[in-house]
Amino acid sequence: MSNRRLLLLSNSTNYGETYLKYPKESISKFLEKDNEEILFIPYAGVGFSYDMYTEKVALPFSELGYRIIGIHTFPDPKQAVMDAEVIAVGGGNTFELLNQLYANKLVEVIQERVNSGVPYMGWSAGSNVASPSIKTTNDMPIVEPPSFNALNLVPFQINPHYTEAQLPNHGGETRKDRIKEFLHLNQDDAVIGIPEGNLLEISDNSCKLRGDDIIKVFKYGAEILNLSSKDNLDFLLE
Amino acid sequence: MSNRRLLLLSNSTNYGETYLKYPKESISKFLEKDNEEILFIPYAGVGFSYDMYTEKVALPFSELGYRIIGIHTFPDPKQAVMDAEVIAVGGGNTFELLNQLYANKLVEVIQERVNSGVPYMGWSAGSNVASPSIKTTNDMPIVEPPSFNALNLVPFQINPHYTEAQLPNHGGETRKDRIKEFLHLNQDDAVIGIPEGNLLEISDNSCKLRGDDIIKVFKYGAEILNLSSKDNLDFLLE
Repeated sequence: MSNRRLLLLSNSTNYGETYLKYPKESISKFLEKDNEEILFIPYAGVGFSYDMYTEKVALPFSELGYRIIGIHTFPDPKQAVMDAEVIAVGGGNTFELLNQLYANKLVEVIQERVNSGVPYMGWSAGSNVASPSIKTTNDMPIVEPPSFNALNLVPFQINPHYTEAQLPNHGGETRKDRIKEFLHLNQDDAVIGIPEGNLLEISDNSCKLRGDDIIKVFKYGAEILNLSSKDNLDFLLE
Repeated sequence: MSNRRLLLLSNSTNYGETYLKYPKESISKFLEKDNEEILFIPYAGVGFSYDMYTEKVALPFSELGYRIIGIHTFPDPKQAVMDAEVIAVGGGNTFELLNQLYANKLVEVIQERVNSGVPYMGWSAGSNVASPSIKTTNDMPIVEPPSFNALNLVPFQINPHYTEAQLPNHGGETRKDRIKEFLHLNQDDAVIGIPEGNLLEISDNSCKLRGDDIIKVFKYGAEILNLSSKDNLDFLLE
């Protein structure tokens, strides 16, 4: 997997900002100049059309000089992945996204393409499915995918929209509680909590945090690691 | 299913109160005097032992004069359900709870017993699994159960810990957004959002809200219904 290049975003949009604003500079640096066309996978969108979703995503990318094309406009989605120069997977519902990736038989072909060097960009649900499984998503399981196994493009679980904030006077589990429960049942796994407004950039065996916040690395029976953009994160890929 | 008796709680404990305090009176009224022993299913608990969980639950029940016995202390859990006078299912992680119900082959036997009149009490995850599926849980999918199909003891989906509060400056979907997404993919289903501190009491074909708050009834393409303990909820069982 030494050729892989991934940009894994916690979220698309910071509260109160325009769509995909905060990651614009990172996306621009990540893409190469001769990548003119980006294959967009809108399957996580529920309750609005893939056309509408693709149009929404196309705008910020067009400002950077890139053209977004929705995978649903191709007669053969598998072939579209095989021909893609860049793959972008948008946020929404992680269960529905993975369900549609299976329904369209895209899991293996995306793995093959990304492992041969096709850049992969994902935000929120699109970052969740880059993990070995979707077991650390925050989403509601509104549909049952054939499996929780996901694209496995990185060796760790991502928890996007990571926060330690809690609703006042509400008894639900904190995010940290949930991740600890995950680790109890999945003791060999690592989980990376990425706060909104932050992203991981992975290139070959290098992993960098882009963003001003602290990411948390959770492992079973270990102290939680607090890491910033100044830290070397390459060990996460081992 | 005309004999069924269920007490479905949003949560075990209101913020800042002692364990299972708010539902105590409702539980006391729900149980019959000759129900001395309650079979407790602690499978939703993750990260602490079933013994610890059972002990925690036993205390408030002992104050009402009832004895709690954990299903894990029986050599044959299926037989324990067949012999049970009352079944209580505690909260925790809904995916792990359903996974263990399948692993211990208890789904059908619980359905049979509850449909023959054995009282069923559940809170949080224990209420989620009383629904046709676990697709409206708030929990993290830390383990993959063989199916999302659940006990189907009532004809509607429960969303426990229902709230319309949002974390400030956080971009995640609201609870309402999530339920709308569920309905988009499950258009024949109804979802009932039950705020913390409230519960449904079901007896034969009667359904009553116990609690001071408003429950929300969501159906695809329909206005959200706001219902209180003064409203007749029997239509939910049709």
